[in-house]
Amino acid sequence: MKTYLDCIPCFFKQILEAARMAGADEQTQRKALDELAKVMPGIPLTYSPPETGKIVYDLLKNIIKKDDPYLKVKEKSNKLALSIYNNLKKKISRSHDRLLTAVELAIAGNIIDYGVKNTLNVDVELKRILNEENRAIKRQNKATFNYVKFRHVLNEARNILYLADNAGEVVFDRILIEEIIRLDSIKKIIYAVKEKPVINDALIDDAIACGVNTVAEVISSGSDAPGTVLSLCSNEFLSTYRKADMIISKGQGNFEALSRANRPVFFLFIAKCPVIAKDAGCMLGDVILIYHSGRSRKRSC
Amino acid sequence: MKTYLDCIPCFFKQILEAARMAGADEQTQRKALDELAKVMPGIPLTYSPPETGKIVYDLLKNIIKKDDPYLKVKEKSNKLALSIYNNLKKKISRSHDRLLTAVELAIAGNIIDYGVKNTLNVDVELKRILNEENRAIKRQNKATFNYVKFRHVLNEARNILYLADNAGEVVFDRILIEEIIRLDSIKKIIYAVKEKPVINDALIDDAIACGVNTVAEVISSGSDAPGTVLSLCSNEFLSTYRKADMIISKGQGNFEALSRANRPVFFLFIAKCPVIAKDAGCMLGDVILIYHSGRSRKRSC
Repeated sequence: MKTYLDCIPCFFKQILEAARMAGADEQTQRKALDELAKVMPGIPLTYSPPETGKIVYDLLKNIIKKDDPYLKVKEKSNKLALSIYNNLKKKISRSHDRLLTAVELAIAGNIIDYGVKNTLNVDVELKRILNEENRAIKRQNKATFNYVKFRHVLNEARNILYLADNAGEVVFDRILIEEIIRLDSIKKIIYAVKEKPVINDALIDDAIACGVNTVAEVISSGSDAPGTVLSLCSNEFLSTYRKADMIISKGQGNFEALSRANRPVFFLFIAKCPVIAKDAGCMLGDVILIYHSGRSRKRSC
Repeated sequence: MKTYLDCIPCFFKQILEAARMAGADEQTQRKALDELAKVMPGIPLTYSPPETGKIVYDLLKNIIKKDDPYLKVKEKSNKLALSIYNNLKKKISRSHDRLLTAVELAIAGNIIDYGVKNTLNVDVELKRILNEENRAIKRQNKATFNYVKFRHVLNEARNILYLADNAGEVVFDRILIEEIIRLDSIKKIIYAVKEKPVINDALIDDAIACGVNTVAEVISSGSDAPGTVLSLCSNEFLSTYRKADMIISKGQGNFEALSRANRPVFFLFIAKCPVIAKDAGCMLGDVILIYHSGRSRKRSC
């Protein structure tokens, strides 16, 4: 997805929120906004938002001089999600279609952003997503919730690349991975996190803290862009990316980075931004499982 | 009210929206964002948002090279509001407290912004504001809906200065002014609009188109800031401002500009922005009638 003009005011909003989240004082927050104002005119709209995002968050990191300003936020998210792991597993075991519920939970986990402060918000979101009426609405629209295709491709796949998004959310990913292995233990799942800290995106430490390493091979994308920007990824990751016969991509950042990729990708996320919702052809707040065939849209890689 | 850091991303959003509203193409929209990025770091937060707003909209006017890009939008708003004038008058004549209803309608008119496309939105808003339950809630909070004080001061006042906000909304102001005159025809009401075009703010032509000139003396503030920034107003206006024994101020822009004024002011608006709502001590969407005594807060003029 290209950067839309509406993303520009939003990047200013994001750097301000991120500076606050990192505990920066008012003067430093203003400095972050001012420095962004200096570089923004030079950023082309042909960049995907995570490419621009990398510039934005690198800039902030230089200003606040902390390598991982969201470390505590991430640790808290992991703990929060782990505290409800057993409850989530119960939801799966009680459900009629375990895989569907696991997919929905994995998407629901996408609400664990640094704004989420307690399990209450997660509970509310889970209720909304698992509500039978909402499920029926979702299933009516194959373009934005293509579970049939997901299940079909999953049955055939042997090497699955799973692109992580945020810390905390990782626990929900683990539950989906556990269900995939339960269907067929021969499947090999590679879970890719970011190489270095960027906002609250999951790193290898988060994957280990959430126990994903017990069910999947954990690797890094080689990049710290807030989305899988292929041109910034390591050769090792790219090799895995090319070999995978199924790619499961979590979160908006990965959708923005790969929505025009020349490989088939399943995008799982909650549409939290109106620009992305418009680009994806859905409504704000929608629970999304998009199958991107890698053929129909303009190639970006 | 000072400019908060949150206002900075919002100014980028506003200039983009305003450029689109003025029919600018994508390239020009980007130019407006880039030019704003160049000047924003130099703008101190001690400026009130309308002071910064003047810089933002002057910059846009220079880029799009149109003197009054919102002329059509304003004309449409005036026509829309005039088309429901008779209905609004009926609501007044049917109500138990005519003045209260007129005050509420004047505040409701504040939703006529350039985003409002038809009478449907206005109807929905009127129903919300005139709903008995919502009225009861409003009356419980004297700090944000001080109708008792408004009525009391109005009874005593002879020279009333009424600060206009948007085109279209002017029709709703006219209805309140008609009710004030109905109570006491000796009262002199001066209706102040902006001197030159700035977004969809009312000008003398709008006041005339909406018939305010038949019930009040229409003057200009001498400024085209999107709010009554006293340091930018004409001496003639300032003289009227100082002589008035009641000031009725419409809209968020005037609240932002005068919330720390050393004169008593009644602020009537709908809280459409979270930063203003926080500053005013209310919730987003609240119907506001704040009495500012001119004594309790830091002086800005």
